[in-house]
Amino acid sequence: MAVNFSSDNETPIAPAMMDAIVEANHGTATAYAEDAWSNQLERAFSELFRTDVTVLLVTTGTVANAIALATVTPPWGSVYCHQSAHIQNDESGAPEFFGNGLRLVPVEGEAGKLSLETLSQSIRDTEGHGVHSYLPSALSLTQSTESGTVYTADEVRSLCDYAHDLGMKTHMDGARFANAVAGLGCHPAEITAEAGIDMLSFGASKNGCMAAEALLIFNQPQWRDTAERLRKRSGHLLSKMRYVSAQLLAYLEDNRWLEMATHANQQAAKFAAAVKSHPQANLEYPVQANEVFLKWTDEGFTHLESLDILFQRWPGRDDLARFVFGHSTTDQEIEFLISAL
Amino acid sequence: MAVNFSSDNETPIAPAMMDAIVEANHGTATAYAEDAWSNQLERAFSELFRTDVTVLLVTTGTVANAIALATVTPPWGSVYCHQSAHIQNDESGAPEFFGNGLRLVPVEGEAGKLSLETLSQSIRDTEGHGVHSYLPSALSLTQSTESGTVYTADEVRSLCDYAHDLGMKTHMDGARFANAVAGLGCHPAEITAEAGIDMLSFGASKNGCMAAEALLIFNQPQWRDTAERLRKRSGHLLSKMRYVSAQLLAYLEDNRWLEMATHANQQAAKFAAAVKSHPQANLEYPVQANEVFLKWTDEGFTHLESLDILFQRWPGRDDLARFVFGHSTTDQEIEFLISAL
Amino acid sequence: MAVNFSSDNETPIAPAMMDAIVEANHGTATAYAEDAWSNQLERAFSELFRTDVTVLLVTTGTVANAIALATVTPPWGSVYCHQSAHIQNDESGAPEFFGNGLRLVPVEGEAGKLSLETLSQSIRDTEGHGVHSYLPSALSLTQSTESGTVYTADEVRSLCDYAHDLGMKTHMDGARFANAVAGLGCHPAEITAEAGIDMLSFGASKNGCMAAEALLIFNQPQWRDTAERLRKRSGHLLSKMRYVSAQLLAYLEDNRWLEMATHANQQAAKFAAAVKSHPQANLEYPVQANEVFLKWTDEGFTHLESLDILFQRWPGRDDLARFVFGHSTTDQEIEFLISAL
Amino acid sequence: MAVNFSSDNETPIAPAMMDAIVEANHGTATAYAEDAWSNQLERAFSELFRTDVTVLLVTTGTVANAIALATVTPPWGSVYCHQSAHIQNDESGAPEFFGNGLRLVPVEGEAGKLSLETLSQSIRDTEGHGVHSYLPSALSLTQSTESGTVYTADEVRSLCDYAHDLGMKTHMDGARFANAVAGLGCHPAEITAEAGIDMLSFGASKNGCMAAEALLIFNQPQWRDTAERLRKRSGHLLSKMRYVSAQLLAYLEDNRWLEMATHANQQAAKFAAAVKSHPQANLEYPVQANEVFLKWTDEGFTHLESLDILFQRWPGRDDLARFVFGHSTTDQEIEFLISAL
Repeated sequence: MAVNFSSDNETPIAPAMMDAIVEANHGTATAYAEDAWSNQLERAFSELFRTDVTVLLVTTGTVANAIALATVTPPWGSVYCHQSAHIQNDESGAPEFFGNGLRLVPVEGEAGKLSLETLSQSIRDTEGHGVHSYLPSALSLTQSTESGTVYTADEVRSLCDYAHDLGMKTHMDGARFANAVAGLGCHPAEITAEAGIDMLSFGASKNGCMAAEALLIFNQPQWRDTAERLRKRSGHLLSKMRYVSAQLLAYLEDNRWLEMATHANQQAAKFAAAVKSHPQANLEYPVQANEVFLKWTDEGFTHLESLDILFQRWPGRDDLARFVFGHSTTDQEIEFLISAL
Repeated sequence: MAVNFSSDNETPIAPAMMDAIVEANHGTATAYAEDAWSNQLERAFSELFRTDVTVLLVTTGTVANAIALATVTPPWGSVYCHQSAHIQNDESGAPEFFGNGLRLVPVEGEAGKLSLETLSQSIRDTEGHGVHSYLPSALSLTQSTESGTVYTADEVRSLCDYAHDLGMKTHMDGARFANAVAGLGCHPAEITAEAGIDMLSFGASKNGCMAAEALLIFNQPQWRDTAERLRKRSGHLLSKMRYVSAQLLAYLEDNRWLEMATHANQQAAKFAAAVKSHPQANLEYPVQANEVFLKWTDEGFTHLESLDILFQRWPGRDDLARFVFGHSTTDQEIEFLISAL
Repeated sequence: MAVNFSSDNETPIAPAMMDAIVEANHGTATAYAEDAWSNQLERAFSELFRTDVTVLLVTTGTVANAIALATVTPPWGSVYCHQSAHIQNDESGAPEFFGNGLRLVPVEGEAGKLSLETLSQSIRDTEGHGVHSYLPSALSLTQSTESGTVYTADEVRSLCDYAHDLGMKTHMDGARFANAVAGLGCHPAEITAEAGIDMLSFGASKNGCMAAEALLIFNQPQWRDTAERLRKRSGHLLSKMRYVSAQLLAYLEDNRWLEMATHANQQAAKFAAAVKSHPQANLEYPVQANEVFLKWTDEGFTHLESLDILFQRWPGRDDLARFVFGHSTTDQEIEFLISAL
Repeated sequence: MAVNFSSDNETPIAPAMMDAIVEANHGTATAYAEDAWSNQLERAFSELFRTDVTVLLVTTGTVANAIALATVTPPWGSVYCHQSAHIQNDESGAPEFFGNGLRLVPVEGEAGKLSLETLSQSIRDTEGHGVHSYLPSALSLTQSTESGTVYTADEVRSLCDYAHDLGMKTHMDGARFANAVAGLGCHPAEITAEAGIDMLSFGASKNGCMAAEALLIFNQPQWRDTAERLRKRSGHLLSKMRYVSAQLLAYLEDNRWLEMATHANQQAAKFAAAVKSHPQANLEYPVQANEVFLKWTDEGFTHLESLDILFQRWPGRDDLARFVFGHSTTDQEIEFLISAL
């Protein structure tokens, strides 16, 4: 049987969340996110993030990101993000669709992270002239990044301060937010609301849920109406939202979200340690969350593949592959991978 | 405890579908609708509808409808539908959003059904002049209708023939398709592909599934690419689609979809019979599926409400209310309702 | 040579405006509506309308209307207009395009005019439920109407008050605004800003200009930025705007705009008088501006056509035709038409 | 009095075109581009470009570009252009607006020109994966470029061949097309239809016309309907199009378009020669059309400004300024500029 490190998107639902779904399945419940489960989530998230949180429940990270950006960006506004960002490369233009033709501006930066220098350079390079040009409107950071690295609280804060000074709003794509928090060992509020993030796509599907994501809006309750209109208008307001909400309640309960991410990160760390001690293999990026980018040889990767180990060869690179570790990755699987290496 | 006839949107998931979810929850599975479950659905639907079916799995009827219409309608195209249609009144402009500003044209017609006469009159009334006007592009029928009635196969066929003759494409909003088939006692193909329907939003969420719908495209495989692009771009391509697919496989298996709808319709019929024999209450529309529109007195409705019976008072009408019966409506609940009446 | 009553769109440019174009054609001028001519127009219009006016110069009435409506209507907002309105029937969905899928709601009403009764009925009929439905956002009146009638100041005021009470904004499509003012014999402010109109598409192309229209925003300077962004983004910010502005300055000067419209209305009135005294011909609508809708016989119309008289047969009606009179319609032409009748 | 080299957008209308406007101003004419003047243009352009040409008359280059790109690019398609392109930097996202959220991909390249190397590198860098990514759909070249340089016929051909091989369509932004033809000394067909260009925004406003541009579609008559729908829907179908058409007929007549551009180029060449012989000033780019990018000192530019010479300081660069020469630039003005240098 294959051992699968292709993506945390391919993992099953963790037992606690499946149990929550089953338990929620009794009797009727008010439709359209007005059920008893959904109603608890604003309080739960507000406690977790130590501030006022407006919550929109959705089923994919793509729509959470798109609603967030479209809520604060006019059609003639631009969104700055790292050139490897999921919104730039993997969402088929969902931000442009929801935002009626807004523009993404890809920014350079090492190891998946844009810096104050590359962001400000990009803003200068795209500086416009009045109505003839796009208006810088939002900054979107990915945490953890597409390279498996994380922004520190200080880095987030300085980027957000810079963006806010220019009148821009700030968004964090947290498809792997739990892994970032686990990797940093910080409080979730420290790298979000307290560091200047206005909106967070709080991902859960990759970390043990079925199709459950939450768009969190910090301290801007006036954005709720636009965000909710966009959710309904795009067909994302589930009638039976209770099954999403029940999962998320279970996910937050007892710090489950963080424990599962910590487990995933630990499995990644074990593999990273093995790579470091390997004579030929190398880490392409520091391993700070649950992803390992392995720089090795085509022959080496082919060898792993022959052992029915699944992972992602990097497009355009013979010498690079990505291994993702999830809440369900077992010690046995890691040991098999390490021994294969 | 309340007895709930507000909407089939509020029912729980039926046991067989919940079991299917639990059973699908083992090990990893390829993401983005390329898993083993999803791969079986095109064959299953093609068999059920006795023709070539392209299947797009989604989580809401709104998005199924919107993708269908946007796939065949240019931004300057118009879609004709009954004035009570869900796409017209309850989807926040999703067709207009996905269709980049296409236009819906509401058509009159008795008991929720447009007729050849009202459709052709509406098309004449909105006849345009070249590039200055919208181009009639699609017809959308709701089956069963928002009034709980059904189109016969002959009615569907004559409307589709008329639309096709004008170069329009045809769509059926089948949020309660199973109830229509159960009500008509026909084969599902007879009122869809074989009657000239090009696309069907095959609803399952209202009839025992969690958040599982399928957009079916009949004999037009060349529309797949546009439809799939729209699904992804709108954030509706779930990474863990297997849980949707597993439900739908269980739903189709052993004619479960039809049995559950038959049960719901029977419960509606019992209540309708009671209404008919009631001295003051009346049926607003013929009861042909799982909805009963009760014409009665404000006092009567208030009495039912006082007994903790939930149903929908009709907006703008003191003397009208809707009762919806679902796969989970029990005999005991029906009896309680009838005795209360 | 044909005598042409088809449309005031087909008339030539009046001498004063052509002279203004020629006179403006010396030396260089700052591009993009920042030239010396354009800079004078806000003052000129503010004086004419006795209030603060923000001016956007454009070349067509369609774009003036579309920018106006998109400036105040969200994508999930609806615009109420008469069912015969140009925005509804003749602009290929420009409001929907500029408004990213906003919805027009056609309202009934006699002789091209919606009334408080039909408007309020339409709003009731389309009443929605929260995020599931469109939000009534704007009212658009056509002045003079597509039937050649006019709204009185009192009618405009009561409709605007009603709309404002519901939180809606108000727009007037004034493609033939000059003819309405001439017909009413009122001050232009009385039927616009002072009656509650927020925005006016001030038409000039039909009344002696080349391709010159002005979107006027009354007392809402904060709408300027959105409107200007929409103008540029839709390709309507002319580099050489001076030629539009020079025309409009000449048009406003010495009450030329009103004199030309008065002339056109007088020619219409002469024809209307002839119709009234005709044994078989009738007026379909009261003649209150520069259009006459003649109810007559197919044979009668064919006779006129045989004399090389051009006019518009009404679609779907054998017994109806429209005659439009313009600034350039001569007495000789009117006499020829009357004698032919 | 100021001497103005800021932009050819600021020049007046040349006498022949003004005469054509005045001459066209007699009697009525069929509206909406169906007049006698407009009807001649397809033949005139087909002769000029030695092939079948579909013509859309519009008033700005922005809308010509936007319609062209939106006609051949789906919302999930991407358009590759040079990073200095007008569509990327100066059109407020018109392509994204008309194209419902299509994406522009800016490509590097020396002196305003993308090369086969930079284009193919950019396409590789943005390579996607199925429905998750944008689909490369169009290539847009600017001729002459934003740096005042030109593509040779061979360069155009190799870029178009490459794009066509990938299934992309090709567009040329010819806001200064006449200057490019004059600079190359070639036949206009050689760098367009015969080199693989599918659509040309044929600019005239910068070179002596008022607000007159033509979108030319080569050998693809089936694109006409979409392009015309987009023109009307965006409010760009002028009722009195005869004044645009009359200008363009006069512009094409007797090779006027080329003579005026040749004059402008010659004035640029004189200034370029003066720069070359200057001890400190330099040319930033080769001067191949009607623009000169002068690399000099801040003091030098301030000196010119003190003499009331108008030109464009380059954003973000103290040492760079642009001088544009037009059809109306006189020898005296050039001599004054050169002596000031």
